[in-house]
Amino acid sequence: MRSDPQRLSFEIEARDGSARAGVIHTAHGPIETPAFIPLATKGSVRALESAEVGELGYQLILGNTYHLFVSPGPERIAAAGGLHGFMNWTQAIITDSGGFQVFSLAHGGVADEVKGSGRSGGHGSEVEISEEGARFRSPRDGAELFISPEVSMSVQAQLGSDIALVFDECTPFHADRDYTARSTERTHRWLERCLAWHGEHGPERQAVFGIVQGGTHEDLRRESAQAISAAGVDGIAIGGTLGRDKEEMASVLAMTAPLLPVEAPKHLLGIGEVDDLLGGIALGLDVFDCAVPTRLARHGVALAPSPETRWRLNMRKGGWAGNREPLVEGCPCPACRCHDRDYISYLSRAEELTAVRLIVLHNLTYMRELTTGARQAIKNGTFASYRAAVLAGSPPWAAGEGGRDTP
Amino acid sequence: MRSDPQRLSFEIEARDGSARAGVIHTAHGPIETPAFIPLATKGSVRALESAEVGELGYQLILGNTYHLFVSPGPERIAAAGGLHGFMNWTQAIITDSGGFQVFSLAHGGVADEVKGSGRSGGHGSEVEISEEGARFRSPRDGAELFISPEVSMSVQAQLGSDIALVFDECTPFHADRDYTARSTERTHRWLERCLAWHGEHGPERQAVFGIVQGGTHEDLRRESAQAISAAGVDGIAIGGTLGRDKEEMASVLAMTAPLLPVEAPKHLLGIGEVDDLLGGIALGLDVFDCAVPTRLARHGVALAPSPETRWRLNMRKGGWAGNREPLVEGCPCPACRCHDRDYISYLSRAEELTAVRLIVLHNLTYMRELTTGARQAIKNGTFASYRAAVLAGSPPWAAGEGGRDTP
Repeated sequence: MRSDPQRLSFEIEARDGSARAGVIHTAHGPIETPAFIPLATKGSVRALESAEVGELGYQLILGNTYHLFVSPGPERIAAAGGLHGFMNWTQAIITDSGGFQVFSLAHGGVADEVKGSGRSGGHGSEVEISEEGARFRSPRDGAELFISPEVSMSVQAQLGSDIALVFDECTPFHADRDYTARSTERTHRWLERCLAWHGEHGPERQAVFGIVQGGTHEDLRRESAQAISAAGVDGIAIGGTLGRDKEEMASVLAMTAPLLPVEAPKHLLGIGEVDDLLGGIALGLDVFDCAVPTRLARHGVALAPSPETRWRLNMRKGGWAGNREPLVEGCPCPACRCHDRDYISYLSRAEELTAVRLIVLHNLTYMRELTTGARQAIKNGTFASYRAAVLAGSPPWAAGEGGRDTP
Repeated sequence: MRSDPQRLSFEIEARDGSARAGVIHTAHGPIETPAFIPLATKGSVRALESAEVGELGYQLILGNTYHLFVSPGPERIAAAGGLHGFMNWTQAIITDSGGFQVFSLAHGGVADEVKGSGRSGGHGSEVEISEEGARFRSPRDGAELFISPEVSMSVQAQLGSDIALVFDECTPFHADRDYTARSTERTHRWLERCLAWHGEHGPERQAVFGIVQGGTHEDLRRESAQAISAAGVDGIAIGGTLGRDKEEMASVLAMTAPLLPVEAPKHLLGIGEVDDLLGGIALGLDVFDCAVPTRLARHGVALAPSPETRWRLNMRKGGWAGNREPLVEGCPCPACRCHDRDYISYLSRAEELTAVRLIVLHNLTYMRELTTGARQAIKNGTFASYRAAVLAGSPPWAAGEGGRDTP
C-alpha cells in the first residue's frame, strides 16, 4: 500500500464490528462510505442527466474503460477535459480497467451482454490472451483492438478518472484451479506493469486500486491479497468469480476480506444486490458498483423491501391495475412521491421511456437510502440490527434504530 | 358557438393583425396563447415526468383517445380520477377524438405509424366505416373494437379531459372531392351526435371543440366552417388534409381561418413545425399540437434556428466530435446549459436514453420559447418582425424587439 493524500486518502470515522463508516477523499471531492456506485457505463447513467445523479446524493460514478475505449475513444474524451468534462460531472469518477469486459468476451461470462451492444454478434468472440495483453475485435466495427496493462492505464489516464483500476484477468467460475493460479500470477505481473506505467505517465492526482483475484480458492486469494497489499496501490478491489451462488460468495468474501489491510478503502466489484451489499459492508468493504439497479429499471423492475423476491417488484407483470400505492410507501423518490403502481406499471408495459426514468430514479434512491442508512447505523453502533431489519423486509429508512430518522 | 364559462372561456388580451394573444380558462387553469401542446399520447410526455412538463412552462397537454382506449382502457383511467389523476397532471388536458388514428388505419395515412405500435402488423388494416361509426381491430391483440361519436365522447368523458374533440372523419389528401364532400357531411352529422351525447352525459366542466373538415376545397371548408360555427361548441379545431405541401397548407389555412368566428379559441390539429406554427398564429389560430418535437428527439434531432434545414440539427450524423457549442447558444434548457454537441451527439449515436431526454427537454423548451416570444411580440405589436426574424434564422429569444427580453 502507498498513501499519497494528493491522490487519495481514506478516513475511517466509525467502526461497528468489521463494518466501518468513512470518507474517501479524491481529487474531485469526498465519497462518504459505505457507498453504492451507479454505472455510467457509456458516459451517462441511464435516463438521467449528470446533474441529477448528484442530486440523488451520489458522489462517485463508474465509467467503463472498455466501452469508452471502443467508442467514442479516449482521445475524444481527453479533448473534452476527460470524462468529467465530457459528461459535465464534477464529483469523483472511478474507471474499471476493461479487463472484465475483454475477458468476458474470451471466457463466455457476460459475453452475450457485451456482444449485444455491438452491431454484429460475430466480432466479439475472438479474443487472444497473451502475456503481453489481450487482442480482440471491436464489437462496433470488427476492427482489431489491443488492451494491455499499459494501454488500460493510458486510456484511464486520458479518461482522467479519480480512481483507476489495474488491468486484470477476470477469471470465471468455470476456470479450473490450475488456470486460475496461472491467471492470478499473470494478474500480479500485470499489476506491476500498471503501476510502473502509472508511476511514469499517470495523472498526478489519479489514484490506483489493485484487484485481488484467486477465484474461490483460499490459498490463491491469500497469495493475491498479499501481492496486492504489498504493491503500491491506493486501495483494493475484490474481483473475479465469487462462486456459484450467494452462499459461496459470502464464504469467499468472508475468507478474503480479513486478508486485506484494514486501513485500505475496499471496492467489491460488480456486486450490488441488497443482501450482498449489506454482507460486504459487514465484512468491512466500502464501495460497491453494480449494473443491477439501473438494468432492472429498463425491464420494469423496482427495488422494494421484499427479501422473498430478492428485493424486486416487477411492474411489467399484470395485477397492478387500480393499485394506488407508490412503488414503496415512504420512499422519497419522485416516482413514489408523485405516482402510483397503477400508472407506473401501465407505462412500463407500454414501454414508455418515462417508466424507465421513474424506476431508475426510484432504484437509485433506494440504493442511496440503503447505504446512507448503513452509514448512520455504523455510527450508531447498530449496524447488525439495521442489517437484520433490512433482511427481514424493512425499507432502509425504517430499518430500526439504525434508520436515518433517528439520532 | 356556445359559451359557458363554467366549462371554458377565452379572453383575447391583445391583437396584432389577425394574430392574438389570449388566455383560455379551463376547469384545470389557464392556458396562455398562442400555445404549443406537447403530446402525452399514451399518458406520458416522452422521457419526462408529469411535473417536469409543467416546469417547462406548459399548461396544456394532449392525450390520445384512440391509444388510451386500446390500452389501458378508459375504465382504468376513470378509476384513477381520469387522466389528470392517472398521470398526476394538475393543469389542462385536451383529448383528441380517436378519429385521426382510426381513419388513418382505413385510409393509409399514418397507418404504418399506428400499426408500428401494435404487436402484429396485420390487425390494423381492417376498418369498416359506416354511418354508425368505425369498427376495427385492436393493434394490441386483434380484438374487435368500435368507435362511434357516442363512444368517443363517452371515452373522453371517462378520461375527464378539459377539452374534448368531436369524433370526425379525418379525410386524407388522396380522397377525391366527392368522397370528401360526403365525408364532411357525415362529420357534421357526427358532430350533432357528439354534442347530443355530451349534453346529456358529458362532464359538466368539459368543453367540446368542433372540427372543421372539407379537405382542400374552399366550398367544402366554407360549409364545414359554417356548420361548426353554428353548432354549440366551445372552440374550433381545423382538421383533415391541408394539402400536399407547405404552400398548399398555407393557402387552405388562409382560406379557412377567416371563415371562423373571431372570438372562438382555435386549434390547428397536428401542426407544429416552426414556420407553420408562426403562419397559423398570423392567421389568428391559438393552439397547436404536434408529435414532431418529441419524435425528432427520439431520432437524435434537436430544434435549432436553421430555416435551411427546417429547424433541425441532426445529432446522429457525424461531424460533431469535439464541438463545444451547446445545441443552441443562449437556449435556457438543461441540455444547453450543461452539455455540448460533442457529448450529446455521442450519447445519441450510442442510443443512450439520456440523449433522448436531453433533446426532448431542449425541443420542448424551444417550442415554449417560440410561443412565449410570439405572445410577447403580439402584445408589443411586433409580431410581423418577430416572425420574420425567426424565419430568417433567429432563435426565438433573440428574434428582434418581439423577443422575450424586451418590454
